[in-house]
Amino acid sequence: MEKERETLQVWKKRVEQELDRVIAFWMEHSHDQEHGGFFTCLGRDGKVYDHLKYVWLQGRQVWMYCRLYRSFERFRRVELLDAARAGGEFLLRYARVAPPGKKCAFVLTRDGRPVKVQRTIFSECFYTMAMNELWKVTGEVRYQSEAIEMMDQIIHWVREDPAGLGRPQLSGALATEPMAVPMMLLSLVEQLGEEDEELTNMYAELGDWCVHRILQHVQRDGQVVLENVSEDGKELPGCLGRHQNPGHTLEAGWFLLQYALRKGDPKLRMHIIDKFLLLPFHSGWDPEHGGLFYFQDADGLCPTQLEWNMKLWWPHSEAMIAFLMGYSDSGDPALLHLFYKVAEYTFRQFRDPEYGEWFGYLNQEGKVALTIKGGPFKGCFHVPRCLAMCEQILGALLQRLE
Amino acid sequence: MEKERETLQVWKKRVEQELDRVIAFWMEHSHDQEHGGFFTCLGRDGKVYDHLKYVWLQGRQVWMYCRLYRSFERFRRVELLDAARAGGEFLLRYARVAPPGKKCAFVLTRDGRPVKVQRTIFSECFYTMAMNELWKVTGEVRYQSEAIEMMDQIIHWVREDPAGLGRPQLSGALATEPMAVPMMLLSLVEQLGEEDEELTNMYAELGDWCVHRILQHVQRDGQVVLENVSEDGKELPGCLGRHQNPGHTLEAGWFLLQYALRKGDPKLRMHIIDKFLLLPFHSGWDPEHGGLFYFQDADGLCPTQLEWNMKLWWPHSEAMIAFLMGYSDSGDPALLHLFYKVAEYTFRQFRDPEYGEWFGYLNQEGKVALTIKGGPFKGCFHVPRCLAMCEQILGALLQRLE
Repeated sequence: MEKERETLQVWKKRVEQELDRVIAFWMEHSHDQEHGGFFTCLGRDGKVYDHLKYVWLQGRQVWMYCRLYRSFERFRRVELLDAARAGGEFLLRYARVAPPGKKCAFVLTRDGRPVKVQRTIFSECFYTMAMNELWKVTGEVRYQSEAIEMMDQIIHWVREDPAGLGRPQLSGALATEPMAVPMMLLSLVEQLGEEDEELTNMYAELGDWCVHRILQHVQRDGQVVLENVSEDGKELPGCLGRHQNPGHTLEAGWFLLQYALRKGDPKLRMHIIDKFLLLPFHSGWDPEHGGLFYFQDADGLCPTQLEWNMKLWWPHSEAMIAFLMGYSDSGDPALLHLFYKVAEYTFRQFRDPEYGEWFGYLNQEGKVALTIKGGPFKGCFHVPRCLAMCEQILGALLQRLE
Repeated sequence: MEKERETLQVWKKRVEQELDRVIAFWMEHSHDQEHGGFFTCLGRDGKVYDHLKYVWLQGRQVWMYCRLYRSFERFRRVELLDAARAGGEFLLRYARVAPPGKKCAFVLTRDGRPVKVQRTIFSECFYTMAMNELWKVTGEVRYQSEAIEMMDQIIHWVREDPAGLGRPQLSGALATEPMAVPMMLLSLVEQLGEEDEELTNMYAELGDWCVHRILQHVQRDGQVVLENVSEDGKELPGCLGRHQNPGHTLEAGWFLLQYALRKGDPKLRMHIIDKFLLLPFHSGWDPEHGGLFYFQDADGLCPTQLEWNMKLWWPHSEAMIAFLMGYSDSGDPALLHLFYKVAEYTFRQFRDPEYGEWFGYLNQEGKVALTIKGGPFKGCFHVPRCLAMCEQILGALLQRLE
């Protein structure tokens, strides 16, 4: 018991210090003082190598700063809130391609002109997360109105009519559900409903629907979780159907654990731990070099994605959260052991002790393949969210042991 | 001299035998006897792992079979022509998404229903190549009409109005010219004009325009070739502007050499050898592990593409053609030396002596990262085109030495 407490204490200290270093990196290098918003294309030492602003990453950094400001005494700092506000205002002004239409760009120029639009819901989802957190921190109603209106639009696209996303209807394209969609919506339900009974009730049915849809991705008698299934929960043919993304499954795992905890459903919790935590770990962990593969094929065939065997930062961040939360909810020491295993690998391989933040992209053997600290898909999000959540969960575990 | 003849002879034999093995692989595994067209998602042993049909690769395989049938006595085989015809008919029937509109799909189901459409010209370009070669082999005029009509459409999209491609006009998107576009058009000019004086004249101005545009990608006082520049030939900001693709530059190199030979322009030839052959080789060849990097950044920064340091089959195939053609045109022994260097690496690392064809994707160290022989972007094209062209050039060189 004393040994366990000590190890938990060591890790709490470790993630706490790392969180400080990581946030210091983004605060020093990513703020655009001129236009608001954040640079995310940062080299190893933090130097900006491209001024483009990716809307996912703008929304995520606003969200992260607000969440830290709101949840940690030591981050209740005016610079954080100012930068989050400036990012929020940048999004309000520029994210939508053709206001009052709600479709957001995927990437903007430094001064906010749209460069590319994705025909998916994700820019809009991170926009919603940002606005809702800004409201929670500032109490300014206009942020919350934006969040709710955008949420309505997203729900309409997903459940009523996707036409506004601009995807062409092609007779050979299967009606595919990527797990990302119900996952993302479930996390929005959790975000908007947090400490808000009215919205919790408003989105209760949506949350249930999301969970139902995510669970449909467990296929082949519970032996695999597939990233893409048909809308009625059947396996799809070909590579698309066999595609597996262990990091995504683990991330969905902790989204689902939060839901099961809220519902007080221990049977669901066991199912989640089994299928969304242990299964992707056992199939996705590289027995030779350690680390989680990025993509796999459910039949064990070679994936067609060139990066399939690389080790990316975010699946490891998400796995840390999932195993620690799983342990916290269930008390199963096997999950704590897995947290330690993943966390040791992650801190050893991804951290950059020299310049701060984490490398994002390693080759299969664990060698750094890209030295960038941020880019079109890596911003101030997975690393600090993981560290902040682990710090909180470890703190709560230690309190329980007192 | 005798030594040189012997080495050329050895390589001629080697590429000839390899071409036979490679074509045998595709003939055995890729023909869809039921619907026509080709499976290109083939595992290491040739087993089909996905039935989707990628239009680029359908067009390329039709072209390749016809070209071999037309140019090599030993490939004048009815099975090759039948498969090419079946592929051509499949394209005629299914490639266009909404006939009589000319826009082609990027990928079709096995039975020809559209799955995805790219907002570029490349499906249409490979369609055109296929139809023109089918005409050259069969003499059937309907194939040539298709080729010419599609070519007109492509020229319209590139030089008059791209609206039909479906790309949204966004205020932050720079008017970018990827080198791929004038390169591809130049190779179509060469294809359609081959042994056809009328079409040679018809497309002469277009060919000059393409060459002018390609040469604009030589930037920074001739120190780099950039994949993307503005339409008036200026360097673009950010990663997009600094992006380099050594294999593409080498491929453009031999397209340009063909043009310079046709024009009888030795000064242009020297410029091409300098900028499109030697420059990408010297900056793109991995001094540590050998092989050409896939992508680079002109400032030496880390590219953001996860696969930047991988070694792909096609840049090596294109480099073999470029250096051998460069040597054949100029007689410069340094280029023959580079041909040998690249060819040795390529045959050692990419060939699969066990099952035939080449692996497509190696990691930086040269280890096979994907065991597939074909996929969404690898079909029956770069490898056999390289082998066939090298066999022809080596044959011509040996004749000159007699």
